[in-house]
Amino acid sequence: MTIEAAWPELSKLLGDRITRSKSELETHGASESYFPLTLPDAVAYPENTQEVSALVTICAAHSVPVIGWGAGTSLEGQAQAFQGGICVDFSRMNRILEVSQGDMDARVQPGLTREVLNEELRATGLFFPVDPGANASIGGMASTRASGTTAVRYGTMRDNVLGLEVVLADGRVIRTGTRARKSSAGYDLTGLFVGAEGTLGLITELTLRLHGQPEAVTSAVCAFDTIGDAVRAVTDAIQMGIPMARVEFVDAATVQVFNEYAGAGMPEAPHLLLEFHGSPTSVAEDAESFGEIVADHQGHGFQWASGAEERKALWTLRHHAYWAILQTRPGTRAVVTDICVPISRLAEAVEATQADLDAQGIRGPILGHVGDGNFHAILLFDPDDTEELARVKAAADRLVDRALSMGGTATGEHGIGTGKKVFMAREHGDAWGVMGDIKRSLDPHNLMNPGKMVPDAN
Amino acid sequence: MTIEAAWPELSKLLGDRITRSKSELETHGASESYFPLTLPDAVAYPENTQEVSALVTICAAHSVPVIGWGAGTSLEGQAQAFQGGICVDFSRMNRILEVSQGDMDARVQPGLTREVLNEELRATGLFFPVDPGANASIGGMASTRASGTTAVRYGTMRDNVLGLEVVLADGRVIRTGTRARKSSAGYDLTGLFVGAEGTLGLITELTLRLHGQPEAVTSAVCAFDTIGDAVRAVTDAIQMGIPMARVEFVDAATVQVFNEYAGAGMPEAPHLLLEFHGSPTSVAEDAESFGEIVADHQGHGFQWASGAEERKALWTLRHHAYWAILQTRPGTRAVVTDICVPISRLAEAVEATQADLDAQGIRGPILGHVGDGNFHAILLFDPDDTEELARVKAAADRLVDRALSMGGTATGEHGIGTGKKVFMAREHGDAWGVMGDIKRSLDPHNLMNPGKMVPDAN
Repeated sequence: MTIEAAWPELSKLLGDRITRSKSELETHGASESYFPLTLPDAVAYPENTQEVSALVTICAAHSVPVIGWGAGTSLEGQAQAFQGGICVDFSRMNRILEVSQGDMDARVQPGLTREVLNEELRATGLFFPVDPGANASIGGMASTRASGTTAVRYGTMRDNVLGLEVVLADGRVIRTGTRARKSSAGYDLTGLFVGAEGTLGLITELTLRLHGQPEAVTSAVCAFDTIGDAVRAVTDAIQMGIPMARVEFVDAATVQVFNEYAGAGMPEAPHLLLEFHGSPTSVAEDAESFGEIVADHQGHGFQWASGAEERKALWTLRHHAYWAILQTRPGTRAVVTDICVPISRLAEAVEATQADLDAQGIRGPILGHVGDGNFHAILLFDPDDTEELARVKAAADRLVDRALSMGGTATGEHGIGTGKKVFMAREHGDAWGVMGDIKRSLDPHNLMNPGKMVPDAN
Repeated sequence: MTIEAAWPELSKLLGDRITRSKSELETHGASESYFPLTLPDAVAYPENTQEVSALVTICAAHSVPVIGWGAGTSLEGQAQAFQGGICVDFSRMNRILEVSQGDMDARVQPGLTREVLNEELRATGLFFPVDPGANASIGGMASTRASGTTAVRYGTMRDNVLGLEVVLADGRVIRTGTRARKSSAGYDLTGLFVGAEGTLGLITELTLRLHGQPEAVTSAVCAFDTIGDAVRAVTDAIQMGIPMARVEFVDAATVQVFNEYAGAGMPEAPHLLLEFHGSPTSVAEDAESFGEIVADHQGHGFQWASGAEERKALWTLRHHAYWAILQTRPGTRAVVTDICVPISRLAEAVEATQADLDAQGIRGPILGHVGDGNFHAILLFDPDDTEELARVKAAADRLVDRALSMGGTATGEHGIGTGKKVFMAREHGDAWGVMGDIKRSLDPHNLMNPGKMVPDAN
């Protein structure tokens, strides 16, 4: 790798839109999670696909790694340049290129954030449902196969990306998918690049599936004595076909944070937070049917409301949980881990994790997406206390062990990055080697986000 | 390729479960569509994954092609051995291995047919929704990325396969996916093998996503003056969020067949056939809301019914359309083509196709899945009239040209096989080459269903 050799060509291509300034390198070397600052060699701000292609071509000629950067909100070090190279910041490729109301789709650039997208869509009656909480970029969300609170109803990025434009490791530009809603024409390359974390190419454009804004929305909240009761209520509702748009679990420790930092005034017990989308009649019926299930499972305090204000307050609480939890111990950071299990094992997984954390004296509120069997533990540690970090990471590792032994996955939505690569062999067995074969076939010189996702080259 | 050299080992492995009898070769050399009889060298009936792996290992050692066979219902020659080799018939691997009601999933073997699966699931309150019409095998449905009438609500095989066991070209057995509902852990290999038509490996087990049997089901039928009106009614309903479980279009020519062959007594005009799934209240509300939309688009004769008998009659009519249409000219066969376009272009695509067929004097009723923008034309020809077959195939090719020029795909659900390979370069551009790269990385000796899907090896 010779960044110095590539520099004249890169400078010529991008002018002052490629930089090696210390502050830029530091901004793009940081992680929202526990990974140490890791500087790339330079940060580039391309403005179109041709520039991305030219940049990759130059990097390929000089064996310089290329790492995509969206909004910097990934949690497993996905966008950090652990082997150096060019950080490609997509913030200048952030436009909505086309919205088709008739087809309920949109073509967008990868640097667009989901909040801006939905702001722009408001007047169309359509919305993009995938909601990971953070105001992530659409390209980043596709690359990590993000999901979040609405996946139980609307699916993940896997389900809501219809097609892509991708710059490959040799600079070639390909398009995957079409604007048709479905296709049986060939390998599902769209699905292959979604979730590949930039290791197979850089996404330069996305065609997204949009959904109609629901006519009516109702939210609901209720408390349970145990997590088991809460999970069983959700399982019953799913089997009965009650269409929940969101169904979130928060444990008593999280509720305590809501109360302390936002005056939520909730009983300190496990809670479900729900949302229903439909017609005024159907959301009322859904909420009432769910209320009956709650009663069957010793739930209490079930309330539902269709007011936009109350709803907004509820989801602001949920989305700010991470930051509120961090504030409970000023100066701390967190290992935010994320696993997903078959829903029949969810209560057991949460309870075992709580017991483990208690035994270790680790503060780690648990919250998650019950409908998917996916939950997060936010494990606090003092950044100056390496022993505590080690203890927290060991607990996070045991959480993944538990998920894998239950037939689950090491990550439901945060992705692998470098943080979870150690679990790939165990989760996938020989299939991990197949991922490596595919990587080598598309990126033989290992320049696209090297060191991530697949087995290390020998 | 030396089948003779491989034969002793194959015989030793499978005994009388591998055969070269003429009748077996002929059964497995036929196609439901217009492709000529093409005999494999032998037909094997493995009973478990280990036997499939051993078979593939032997074939790899002797460069003998391996082609999977499910129920023989594919329409583009996917299961025909155009380069010879062993046809692997999965009919002895047809068991349901496990059903988890709590997780709403099932592990099944590839030779299981969807009708048997749903029969077995009946008592559980669950069902597997993907319904391509034919009683296809689950493995075949996964391999061709099948969908059908319910995809608008429940998705295609892409959305309903959670994980796979696959025997690779070198005999290795891998598992993809987990029993978790979602994952961000690595490349989506499940999605890669679904739709690969056996060119990357043989599927030996599938974990399927199941759904709750709806509490209430309502069906509806209505006529329109034009296909444009029918499509606009559906577009409005989708945007309003009316959850349609099925929404099928049949043109006037298809209705004529329903009347002639089943005494349907329907007005000879374009029709929509619909189904709603939900609670008794919600399906009634959905049907009534749809009725209002129908009125806005000059629809007439809107009727809905919740009786199981009427519903069954309606969908029997729809599912038997292909056979009924074939009977309109005894002794004919049909080119059954299938394209998918952005829904905003659907009316135009259907009308242009009707005009083209009329101009050519080709009898070709049109019907399809409006909610997905996917339709079929059933183009009749006399098997003894090569000129007519050529004319019909040319019309089918123009239909695909039209779909591609509208931003659509050459096939929404029937797949590529050999019948549509000619369109791959145009639909995918350089991305088709990427498919070839992936094929070579997983099957370097081109033994898994060779000659299909990817560019021919040089």
